[in-house]
Amino acid sequence: VIEIHPVEGLPEIRAGDDLGAMIAARVELRPGDVLVVAQKAVSKAEGRVVRLDEIEASAQARELAGGDEDPRRLEAILRETVRIVRARPPLVIAETRHGFVCASAGVDASNAPEPGTLVLLPLDPDASARRLHERLGVAVIVSDSFGRPFRHGTTDVAIGVAGLAPLEDLRGTHDRAGYELQTTQIAVADELAGAAQLVMGKADGVPAAVIRGAPVRGDGAARDLVMEAERDLFR
Amino acid sequence: VIEIHPVEGLPEIRAGDDLGAMIAARVELRPGDVLVVAQKAVSKAEGRVVRLDEIEASAQARELAGGDEDPRRLEAILRETVRIVRARPPLVIAETRHGFVCASAGVDASNAPEPGTLVLLPLDPDASARRLHERLGVAVIVSDSFGRPFRHGTTDVAIGVAGLAPLEDLRGTHDRAGYELQTTQIAVADELAGAAQLVMGKADGVPAAVIRGAPVRGDGAARDLVMEAERDLFR
Repeated sequence: VIEIHPVEGLPEIRAGDDLGAMIAARVELRPGDVLVVAQKAVSKAEGRVVRLDEIEASAQARELAGGDEDPRRLEAILRETVRIVRARPPLVIAETRHGFVCASAGVDASNAPEPGTLVLLPLDPDASARRLHERLGVAVIVSDSFGRPFRHGTTDVAIGVAGLAPLEDLRGTHDRAGYELQTTQIAVADELAGAAQLVMGKADGVPAAVIRGAPVRGDGAARDLVMEAERDLFR
Repeated sequence: VIEIHPVEGLPEIRAGDDLGAMIAARVELRPGDVLVVAQKAVSKAEGRVVRLDEIEASAQARELAGGDEDPRRLEAILRETVRIVRARPPLVIAETRHGFVCASAGVDASNAPEPGTLVLLPLDPDASARRLHERLGVAVIVSDSFGRPFRHGTTDVAIGVAGLAPLEDLRGTHDRAGYELQTTQIAVADELAGAAQLVMGKADGVPAAVIRGAPVRGDGAARDLVMEAERDLFR
């Protein structure tokens, strides 16, 4: 049996906050637990916030804004982007410095600390997860809500991982009848992130959850989940 | 708190089996529960299995097989395909009759009933979910493991839904600071399917799970999750 517990009572996170201590004060973590922390909380604690009034929009940003949108927001997105994968102004699907492909390069105004600010992804979410893992002694996932091709809606996925292998490798395993399995890797870290979202909500101010009883094995990083561009049929 | 319970002790499923009765005999379902059933079990109960020796490969199937692969398997895939989205022989990413985009149009040899057979997706997985929902009185998701662009590994997603709205619509809701949320729809059915996979494993013979305490609202179908091709930037 797996249990998913919301971490309740966390205040609004501010730059410099000791997120690990704030979580440890509110939940009893046990060996084998997985702590899932929303990217927004991690980014705010790390000060990954920009002010629109400190951004000057480039010509490309104005073009991508398409008229109705604030071009400074597009400029903030372009600064987080290593490659534009698809664009339909003002929608930009971008590859980030981490290799993630997501809307707006993860730049988001909702749940931002104040009007006129945008929250960026952590510079190195695997390192963010690793610091929390070393501090708290449990597996840690930093999660964010990503859209995906072909299907409506977002699901939360892992953008930072420490203390568990994000992929369960089934190569060489067999089904009950003895046939080797075709699906060879399961993205358990993404499934754990999505499961945690079910108790975290979006507007509820619950930026963390604890998953108890999940199969946690090995170690790794969210960068293991990134499909190499040259192997990817969709980039 | 959300709990995820595996439904244990189910035998190998055969064509004509009363899956609803078999599950009801092994787990006590309560109002508000979500029952997640693996596609493979539903397909087998519905007799959605083909024998390779009854398939004759077309020229297109032989071409897509690329030499090393059995072209009859590719022929079975083509028969389930309304559009080939990407192909790198023998890998085919296909749009199915349901609108799902997935590897091999969901055709799979692992966990097949016997050598030389392939399991196909249910003809109408929403109808399969609806029958179980009416029989058992709880929300039902039929799940399958799908790969996705940009990221390694599969996650389980909902290919059939009944008794819950697969998308949580946040349009018009606001964050703690009063800003309207940018992420407007959460694919909760996919997150529930992925969460259930964590207890179902792949080779373990646990083809169903019960999720207790999840936010279950409304009603709908997995077809609501399908992005219309003309809106999709990746088709």
